[in-house]
Amino acid sequence: MIDIEELRDCYINTPSKIVLLVVDGLGGLAHPDTGKSELETANTPNLDALAQVSACGLTTPVLPGVAPGSGPGHLALFGYDPLKHIIGRGALEALGIDVELKPGDVAARGNFCTVDSDGLLVDRRAGRIPTELSAPICERLDRIEIEGVQVDVFPVQDYRFVLRLRGERLSESVTETDPQREGVPALPVRALNAGAQRTAELVNQFVAKAAQLMSEEERANMLLLRGFAQMPSLPPMGEVYRMNPAAIAAYPMYRGLATVAGMKVIPTGRQFSDEVETMRQNYDAHDFFFIHYKPADAAGEDGDFDAKVQCLEALDPLIPAIRELEPDVFMVAGDHATPAITAGHSWHPVPFMLNSWMTRGEGIPSFDERACRQGSIGSIPATNVMLLGMSHAGKMAKYGP
Amino acid sequence: MIDIEELRDCYINTPSKIVLLVVDGLGGLAHPDTGKSELETANTPNLDALAQVSACGLTTPVLPGVAPGSGPGHLALFGYDPLKHIIGRGALEALGIDVELKPGDVAARGNFCTVDSDGLLVDRRAGRIPTELSAPICERLDRIEIEGVQVDVFPVQDYRFVLRLRGERLSESVTETDPQREGVPALPVRALNAGAQRTAELVNQFVAKAAQLMSEEERANMLLLRGFAQMPSLPPMGEVYRMNPAAIAAYPMYRGLATVAGMKVIPTGRQFSDEVETMRQNYDAHDFFFIHYKPADAAGEDGDFDAKVQCLEALDPLIPAIRELEPDVFMVAGDHATPAITAGHSWHPVPFMLNSWMTRGEGIPSFDERACRQGSIGSIPATNVMLLGMSHAGKMAKYGP
Repeated sequence: MIDIEELRDCYINTPSKIVLLVVDGLGGLAHPDTGKSELETANTPNLDALAQVSACGLTTPVLPGVAPGSGPGHLALFGYDPLKHIIGRGALEALGIDVELKPGDVAARGNFCTVDSDGLLVDRRAGRIPTELSAPICERLDRIEIEGVQVDVFPVQDYRFVLRLRGERLSESVTETDPQREGVPALPVRALNAGAQRTAELVNQFVAKAAQLMSEEERANMLLLRGFAQMPSLPPMGEVYRMNPAAIAAYPMYRGLATVAGMKVIPTGRQFSDEVETMRQNYDAHDFFFIHYKPADAAGEDGDFDAKVQCLEALDPLIPAIRELEPDVFMVAGDHATPAITAGHSWHPVPFMLNSWMTRGEGIPSFDERACRQGSIGSIPATNVMLLGMSHAGKMAKYGP
Repeated sequence: MIDIEELRDCYINTPSKIVLLVVDGLGGLAHPDTGKSELETANTPNLDALAQVSACGLTTPVLPGVAPGSGPGHLALFGYDPLKHIIGRGALEALGIDVELKPGDVAARGNFCTVDSDGLLVDRRAGRIPTELSAPICERLDRIEIEGVQVDVFPVQDYRFVLRLRGERLSESVTETDPQREGVPALPVRALNAGAQRTAELVNQFVAKAAQLMSEEERANMLLLRGFAQMPSLPPMGEVYRMNPAAIAAYPMYRGLATVAGMKVIPTGRQFSDEVETMRQNYDAHDFFFIHYKPADAAGEDGDFDAKVQCLEALDPLIPAIRELEPDVFMVAGDHATPAITAGHSWHPVPFMLNSWMTRGEGIPSFDERACRQGSIGSIPATNVMLLGMSHAGKMAKYGP
């Protein structure tokens, strides 16, 4: 798999503009009653019309058979080898709630839990207490002070929160406190190497203070920490591609991923129509736009075939507004498939199309899994999407003399 | 190319069952008279019916243009990068005749040859003497004793045999004795590094004693040794995939390859129907079965198009017996193509299909090279076959958060 920096000498700065629309969980599988996938079922005249004048294909997010999380799914579309660049769970959770992670910060996923009078776990999720109850506890934990490090606790949802440590010489190489079963106590944090010794001690101090603060709580009287992670240091897209990239996404996690990739995040509203309007208003200021459409993935994760069809149909009328901007290259891609029949991310190849002055159509009638399979782009790793976008936009010189 | 250990954190142990049927030399090429390949010519209603409810595609064993031997062809299907994990010629020859190779043992391919009174080679294959003549010579050589090492000689066929050395501190890093031409003497064995010095001396002692023993023979009055090899140490499939894998194969080489990959080999009979019955009887004890069908490859190697068609037709009626076991995932794959028109292994993409509850068919009417090309799996490296099997069986977690 190609990685973003391998062809960096080929990239050229030009005024041409690329729009990459990522439809989260775009791909699907056939409904058993109809034999048609979500995209094949949806009435999407604008996406179909675009396919008729585009080069079409299928992208494989990581590898055939490998279902990716949102992190690897997006990083691959941005050109980063997803097997090489890993975003840890704690860091992704922080990105998901708009928590800033500076280089060196360590983030962890936290769970409130219930322990008995001997300190043994009786409920690893504290009865799934609602956010109304957990948020005030987070506020109290957030006030904990540990010498030599800044400690912040942010509520996520229900029994989940994010712990962020900020300071000098922190390390993500520490073990988790969740023993993954009940009837035993939470584990102390251990350093996985000598450089992580200090971080392990700091976290253990935090847990001790937190346990004391929470001891009177009925359900959330203890906490578990998992997925300690620092933000990876990625070669910035703007520098490598010699572009000025911008990201427009209603959901925090995708803004976070764009930040990791070195894009400028432009504030926008909650709806995709807001995102398109934001792009229109900022169209002159950038030469690359990543614009994210979330709802289809959520419907797929819920296993709701009809809802996913409706989400795709709701996207369709906004396609002309993007085309009206006349980008030199307009790509529609997905970070992975989320088939409603599997109710989760999957490994299946994802429809992809690229429109430019060079693509006049190739007899592909519609934008779906089956039609795209016949397209001229064929089946490619998602890490090649940016290469295709850059080259169709005239932003790539010949490789080699 | 992915290698077996790279995604090991994703594998989950579940009770679901996977059957991987490897049809040796499955792929073919069109007959010049009909324009149809062996699979397209064969009447295989059961394979075709399976294709109609499967996800189909093509696998490339090593790389486009690279015709693999049986070793790399199978290792790739098991998930091992065939460019990284090499089984040496001597080791594979030993596996092919059911000769046990323990870690540390060194095996070499042997040829009987004819030398003149000056010791110069006049026939590198000793007139291709038949096994009836060579086997008694092997017996005599087998009785040779060398201090510090156990020496065993096993007949293969005609003028070919296997030499096995067993003992401490042996090395495969020694040169061959075959000068690859006639009119010159056999070469002495040289060590390729300091650690191989002792092995080189032991082999030279063996060759000297053997030459003396054989000096009165008319044709087989000398021997040549090639492909010194130890068994590679592969990460065991069971451990990496968190499975309990079993292999059922009528031919020794494939049992040997399965052993190298860490599978349990279940004894079986000589026919494929025996293999299927063996699988049925042991079905509860394992969650992964590699079952091997040999005849198609042999017919292809013979350049006998009609015989290969018949071998494929002979396999077909046994497909329902496998489907009756209702494996969660049933994959039909080939280790490589063996087109009758080339009479040898080839590099061509090999038909592949995967059946699971998730695959409802995709309009692929039959199981052959042309039809599978239209399938949703597309053209994939053979190293992805296990990933697809594992993920369709629910044995793989999402990669990355």
